[in-house]
Amino acid sequence: MNKSFNEAVEARRSHYAIGKEIALSDDALRDIVEHAVKFVPSAFNSQSSRVVVLLNDEHDSLWELTRENLRKIVPEEAFGPTNDKMNAFKSGYGTVLFFEDQAIVEGLQAQFGLYKDNFPVWSQQSSGMLQYVVWTGLDAEGLGASLQHYNEVIENDVKKAWSLPEKWKLIAQMPFGKPLAAVNEKDFGPLEARVKVLG
Amino acid sequence: MNKSFNEAVEARRSHYAIGKEIALSDDALRDIVEHAVKFVPSAFNSQSSRVVVLLNDEHDSLWELTRENLRKIVPEEAFGPTNDKMNAFKSGYGTVLFFEDQAIVEGLQAQFGLYKDNFPVWSQQSSGMLQYVVWTGLDAEGLGASLQHYNEVIENDVKKAWSLPEKWKLIAQMPFGKPLAAVNEKDFGPLEARVKVLG
Repeated sequence: MNKSFNEAVEARRSHYAIGKEIALSDDALRDIVEHAVKFVPSAFNSQSSRVVVLLNDEHDSLWELTRENLRKIVPEEAFGPTNDKMNAFKSGYGTVLFFEDQAIVEGLQAQFGLYKDNFPVWSQQSSGMLQYVVWTGLDAEGLGASLQHYNEVIENDVKKAWSLPEKWKLIAQMPFGKPLAAVNEKDFGPLEARVKVLG
Repeated sequence: MNKSFNEAVEARRSHYAIGKEIALSDDALRDIVEHAVKFVPSAFNSQSSRVVVLLNDEHDSLWELTRENLRKIVPEEAFGPTNDKMNAFKSGYGTVLFFEDQAIVEGLQAQFGLYKDNFPVWSQQSSGMLQYVVWTGLDAEGLGASLQHYNEVIENDVKKAWSLPEKWKLIAQMPFGKPLAAVNEKDFGPLEARVKVLG
């Protein structure tokens, strides 16, 4: 991967049409995720992020689990598009699950009372940074990914299915695979209203 | 800047000792910030992030404003280290102020009631992504930066001083400049406890 930082930032997009035939080894996937987890910063270097990468049958199970949980709450006559989405995500090669360990966040809150209300916010910001670096890292290696948020619908069952600690709060799901379609043009609003340089 | 994405991610660190003699033009600084704001993703492509870059006298004013507001709440006998910090940040070349436009977030909440509670969280995650990309972008160009959070202490005065919209919520401050000292070794915890690959 020889993309510059700027090129990688420009190239990263949401890919919803993904397949299982990827050109990357499972070890290379692990390297991308571990590299991101290692180098992305966290408040007070608390390293509160946790990541589970589901591949093969485990990946398939996640999207079947999500499908069945959604079936309980989405009206049957509206389930078609939801079902299609589950099929699309399941068609990918794997899913990265992002968590924040609330044991760490609560520990910081107990230790540094002055910032009590800030630690959960900083934890979310750090998770955002990590999601971004994994996403861009996968994209730079030729994979396609998107960011999904079925947190409330699946969190308990995910922890049960993969025996994860109770204190790991589920933040996002990133299904990824071989990109199967070109992405659409993205709509960028004018920057003048969003960036000011003064002085 | 020819660093690869991975190299840039590895190199980014917090720099607290910074000076004003930078080798980058103000236009190049603007490019780094605009590039990040343009390409960093946001929930529903809502583009809720706002950035103000303060340079020269405006940068100095920010840290004098922060100093005077802190002087009102930090006990006089403990003010020495706080005062030193203000001097250190003011010694930099500029500061990037990160905001999230609550008019956008509230608009999404009104429009998509199902995700009402999620939009403020996703806005914080997106701001984290943006902070990260600006930070790493500055670092990749040879600048040193750190992330500060004097939000509650300065938000109202900052909006008054630079005539910013009431709905812009201040999220973070990033003073930057010429790095004046080598950074310390960073403490990385073991990855086995933080990353699982299953399947």
